[in-house]
Amino acid sequence: MKALLAALATAVSATALAADPAAVPYPEGYRNWSHVKAMVIKPGHPLYASFGGIHHIYANKKALAGYRAGKFPDGAVIVFDLLEAKDEANAVQEGARKVVGVMHKDAKMWAATGGWGYEGFKGDSKTERAVGANAASACHECHTQQKDRDFVFSTWRK
Amino acid sequence: MKALLAALATAVSATALAADPAAVPYPEGYRNWSHVKAMVIKPGHPLYASFGGIHHIYANKKALAGYRAGKFPDGAVIVFDLLEAKDEANAVQEGARKVVGVMHKDAKMWAATGGWGYEGFKGDSKTERAVGANAASACHECHTQQKDRDFVFSTWRK
Repeated sequence: MKALLAALATAVSATALAADPAAVPYPEGYRNWSHVKAMVIKPGHPLYASFGGIHHIYANKKALAGYRAGKFPDGAVIVFDLLEAKDEANAVQEGARKVVGVMHKDAKMWAATGGWGYEGFKGDSKTERAVGANAASACHECHTQQKDRDFVFSTWRK
Repeated sequence: MKALLAALATAVSATALAADPAAVPYPEGYRNWSHVKAMVIKPGHPLYASFGGIHHIYANKKALAGYRAGKFPDGAVIVFDLLEAKDEANAVQEGARKVVGVMHKDAKMWAATGGWGYEGFKGDSKTERAVGANAASACHECHTQQKDRDFVFSTWRK
């Protein structure tokens, strides 16, 4: 029986290693988390195709501790909330939601991508996923530039 | 003695009515309150001289209830956090803080201005006040347009 369990454990573990990264949960309640910073990305910016609009960064309590420490604990979640930017009459107003980007830290669960799970939820959907199994190439590759800051671009605006 | 106290109470009350409005406290901790919405006001906008830059609106828990109800309870505090907007290389980034505007609800304390105390704290100061005794003309007069929404312009962005 013991040998059977050991074999089973090995098999499960091997399956986990070979499988797609674990699904990142939708960040329920993030609109009431702390607001880290905002930025507007306009036509002509190199990231416009992916991130054009006005975005807000939010942090849950564990992520807030991470911004202070420069290293994020398991359970830290950072949200990148991208909205359309309506630029008219000398003002930029927020429009419809384009995507809710998420970074969710768990050193073991997302070991292959620096301990971060990445996902994007389309528009106002909590289930339509824009990233899925492509996190390594679609997200983490660029975030690797920020390895010294635990792969996070944003900083807490005082 | 009873008559003396009554006379004293009347005198104090009369003084309170004639005096400047009560000072609005600095909104300690607002950076961790809920983020309501943001907007960029650019050169050429009619409010640019006063409110040019990027601003964020934050709400404490009582103010959140107010946004839902359309009527704000005593103790509701709304913050208007105005930062410089650095518009370059096809992006708008946040710069230095210009003013922390505050609306603080107390129906009795600020009865003369719709139950709202108004103040502006200059830059990153918690003590330098931009409004003081001028709240009626400098703030409330314009907010009166929004009387049907308890004098509040902003709405909660979902």
